[in-house]
Amino acid sequence: MKTETEIRVVRPPRRSRPGLPLPPGRLGPVELELELEGRVMNCDIGFECIGPPDAPAVVALGGISADAHVSAHDGGPRPGWWEALVGPGRAIDTERCRVIGMDWLGGTGDTVAESATAAPLPAVTTRDQADLLARLLDGLGIERVRAVVGASYGGMVALAFAARYPRRLERAVVISAAHQTHPMATALRSIQREIVRFGLRTGREAEGLALARELAVTTYRTAAEFHARFGNGPVWERAVPRFPVETYLRHQGRRFADRFTAERYLRLSESLDLHAVDPARILAPVTLVSVREDTLVPPWQMEQLLTKLRGRGELVRIRSRYGHDAFLKETASIGRVLESTVGQRAANREVAR
Amino acid sequence: MKTETEIRVVRPPRRSRPGLPLPPGRLGPVELELELEGRVMNCDIGFECIGPPDAPAVVALGGISADAHVSAHDGGPRPGWWEALVGPGRAIDTERCRVIGMDWLGGTGDTVAESATAAPLPAVTTRDQADLLARLLDGLGIERVRAVVGASYGGMVALAFAARYPRRLERAVVISAAHQTHPMATALRSIQREIVRFGLRTGREAEGLALARELAVTTYRTAAEFHARFGNGPVWERAVPRFPVETYLRHQGRRFADRFTAERYLRLSESLDLHAVDPARILAPVTLVSVREDTLVPPWQMEQLLTKLRGRGELVRIRSRYGHDAFLKETASIGRVLESTVGQRAANREVAR
Repeated sequence: MKTETEIRVVRPPRRSRPGLPLPPGRLGPVELELELEGRVMNCDIGFECIGPPDAPAVVALGGISADAHVSAHDGGPRPGWWEALVGPGRAIDTERCRVIGMDWLGGTGDTVAESATAAPLPAVTTRDQADLLARLLDGLGIERVRAVVGASYGGMVALAFAARYPRRLERAVVISAAHQTHPMATALRSIQREIVRFGLRTGREAEGLALARELAVTTYRTAAEFHARFGNGPVWERAVPRFPVETYLRHQGRRFADRFTAERYLRLSESLDLHAVDPARILAPVTLVSVREDTLVPPWQMEQLLTKLRGRGELVRIRSRYGHDAFLKETASIGRVLESTVGQRAANREVAR
Repeated sequence: MKTETEIRVVRPPRRSRPGLPLPPGRLGPVELELELEGRVMNCDIGFECIGPPDAPAVVALGGISADAHVSAHDGGPRPGWWEALVGPGRAIDTERCRVIGMDWLGGTGDTVAESATAAPLPAVTTRDQADLLARLLDGLGIERVRAVVGASYGGMVALAFAARYPRRLERAVVISAAHQTHPMATALRSIQREIVRFGLRTGREAEGLALARELAVTTYRTAAEFHARFGNGPVWERAVPRFPVETYLRHQGRRFADRFTAERYLRLSESLDLHAVDPARILAPVTLVSVREDTLVPPWQMEQLLTKLRGRGELVRIRSRYGHDAFLKETASIGRVLESTVGQRAANREVAR
């Protein structure tokens, strides 16, 4: 059954004059043919747009636990996952750009997929997410965006989008992501998935999820940060030693288990490991940001990507004690890159080059 | 009840002339007052001696899964955990040294502890292991050894022994171990212990152990090794992707679960994190070996230890793609250090300095 694609605005806009945020919406159903199984899914795409509808569009994509809510706005006042960098007057200025956020297929947000056979959603790739983004832009009537900005998983999807739709973006900005994954990152995520499956097998999904997230957190941060934050001696609770770093990890794990499900974790974690993009297919200029201390995406991999992009890439190397999480923590250095590539300084920059 | 300490030789020596290996034995019972609870345990100590009884004694201590069987000998012909470096004509030459191996208190070997109250063995520290080693040397009639050589957990115990019995060794050789642990190492071991406890709670001890070991393996090796060994693309088994590194990890986990128990894992893993030695108490010269790629024991920690040892330390810096496992894999470079500190070249070296 073929249905018309429509944009459903879940909550009516509070004010109707142009230049104001479009509240959270859902686009769909759209048809999506999944890369690996070739199965066609009918998808509703959860998305948010912030900023003037006539301003240049900038897509902002985060990690596997990010959603369409990039930043607070009238239609959704809670802080977004990139609040520090996206908003009025911020690095990605929502008074000058129309910022588009999207919920991942298989993720936590409002994007929902149904297949005709009612079978569960199979493996999802970053190419599938790129296709989903293309369908969203179609629905919003946007032929070409100023930039797709992505970090971590979002950076992989930005690369996949740039490879698959080379003329639909002026630039990709890719933070802490490369054209392929590293076997050590795969190893650590594979163990996380095994932990989650262990939880499912034993009827303890939340415990498995929490424990998997604890391990993930160690890969998102660095030894140097842990050294600075956590004293090493245990606190004794009766005869049981409790190390300061344990308290932190347990808290992180529990908090995550409250808002994620095993099914989503397994699918998006696997999607990270299935990622592979041919840089030769990317035609738009790409700004890469590598973090020296990132252990999940080692800087040499981004250097390799830079080489493979030939003249189309540029690489900004930053340092951060937060490692892979730098895109969430290093507001100043990441902000400078965003301002000069997609923000209000971008125009000047084009002239200067 | 006070019992006489005795050396029980489990299997009679095949030949009785001096210079031949003493087969596996057990010493005990000896009394040991545990550091943290102050409880007195009666211990039988599993040990092995290889080499001429009148030769200088060298104690060789390995990681938490090592045992008293350091190298093959007449009384125990299967390969030991340090086979490549200990044996006739090898770096630690069992024709010139009497090599002593010991089973950890709480470990996999023959060391057994019983308390008067039949309560389970409480937390064990590296100081407890050092005390156990001192009782073993008492029983063997050895007042002072040429060296205590230890790697990983064994290196921590070597430092604890040097701090607690400063006059009972001529030298400590400490590979990939420092005076304290790092919070990131504690974080990753804490997650391993949580996985093992998860297995215990759900009646799936072997699965929990295997999964914990998989995580441990990623910390013993390096990203560079995984990159060189494992291609990144998955092999598809029906619709399920299986990444090459997963096959390796699953195998490592299962193999380990066959020979370890949750109880031992929890106790020795915790012991690693409880480790802390005051370098000021160490009087004997200490040779430190740091591995640049070791992520569990970062080289800066061993540099710090070197400083705290003041004139009593020397540091050999090596590089290895095997990271923390270098002591098992880098036969050439580790061998040179052992030869020059405890092996046949040690005497020349003393002259040369």
